[in-house]
Amino acid sequence: MSTFFLDISISLDGYVAGPNITLEEPLGKRGEQLHEWVFATRGWREPHGLEGGEDSADSEIVKKTVENVGATIMGRRMFSGGAGPWESDPNADAWWGDDPPFHNPVFVLTHHARESQPKQGGTTFHFVTDGIEAAFAQAREAAGDKKIQLSGGAQVAQQYMQAGLLDEIHLHVAPVLLGGGQRLFDGQTNELERVSSSESPSGAIHISYRLVK
Amino acid sequence: MSTFFLDISISLDGYVAGPNITLEEPLGKRGEQLHEWVFATRGWREPHGLEGGEDSADSEIVKKTVENVGATIMGRRMFSGGAGPWESDPNADAWWGDDPPFHNPVFVLTHHARESQPKQGGTTFHFVTDGIEAAFAQAREAAGDKKIQLSGGAQVAQQYMQAGLLDEIHLHVAPVLLGGGQRLFDGQTNELERVSSSESPSGAIHISYRLVK
Repeated sequence: MSTFFLDISISLDGYVAGPNITLEEPLGKRGEQLHEWVFATRGWREPHGLEGGEDSADSEIVKKTVENVGATIMGRRMFSGGAGPWESDPNADAWWGDDPPFHNPVFVLTHHARESQPKQGGTTFHFVTDGIEAAFAQAREAAGDKKIQLSGGAQVAQQYMQAGLLDEIHLHVAPVLLGGGQRLFDGQTNELERVSSSESPSGAIHISYRLVK
Repeated sequence: MSTFFLDISISLDGYVAGPNITLEEPLGKRGEQLHEWVFATRGWREPHGLEGGEDSADSEIVKKTVENVGATIMGRRMFSGGAGPWESDPNADAWWGDDPPFHNPVFVLTHHARESQPKQGGTTFHFVTDGIEAAFAQAREAAGDKKIQLSGGAQVAQQYMQAGLLDEIHLHVAPVLLGGGQRLFDGQTNELERVSSSESPSGAIHISYRLVK
């Protein structure tokens, strides 16, 4: 059965986005500091169509993460930054242009139905209106034996943890205190097992946990 | 000048004590799970007058932490679990009996004056009523060139971070989600540098940060 994992950068004080999230600053104030480690890697830059980047241990971590992913799940806010009917969402076509970096079917959790949106490079956005379990079932169907990645955001991650469906959490803990914003953990009490950890030259720590079921 | 450091065990979701703190359960619900890694070490058990324990890498970390500490600072709640006048505090003599594990002068932050309490083994409890800067000045005087340890709890740590007086934070991140309790970080935005990290066989991660001033 495919592994369902969350891979996310987080501040030392537990935030996956800073305060004051806007369309211009979708990661909130100072939120991009969480991702400095990944922006520096070739493993991240290449699938995002950017030149350069380092072939570091961090880059290997990124490559290994996206390797063999057969489906992706994300929340509506992560997709477009918006909420409510699509007609009034100024970013209804999302952040990633015609060639998004997913290269697999992406299931977007939303309350507002919409036709699937095929893009270049193997990414198709599907919009799921009947809840997290339905999205998970569709993602499993699409992924086959491959992994399923939960992209975020925090609320969706909390719902999947609560439902006991998530298998693994890979955290990249940035050496940053944001002082506010969107917390990844908020009342979850899942039992954890540490799987691995390593240092990033950026000052972050990579830590992986298995959720005990 | 002496280094002023906080050394504290914390859950993956950022709590240094669980919910529902009582005199019987001063670490709150499931809070003792944060400290499993340290309870297993000889380096912790020996100064606490307990037999056994492992001579592991964890034990070395504990020994190195308490080595060369010349003074300790803690909050009133950490000292006794209580608040208000000492006469009505059922735990006014604290948790540690006649031979506390500190072996140096301990400065307790409180709103209620009290005479110093000398104990065995070099520990003397002093009660400081004029604030965190006064306690720090007294601890520096007492420590000389040695280190000053901030024992906790969270509110006192936040005050020292806010005031820019703390030099280092050593975290022991337990593979546990408490789901509630006392957060270590709450609005701080200090700039950090990661100093070191290592894995504990218990499943915890030890991470040290320097606070940039």
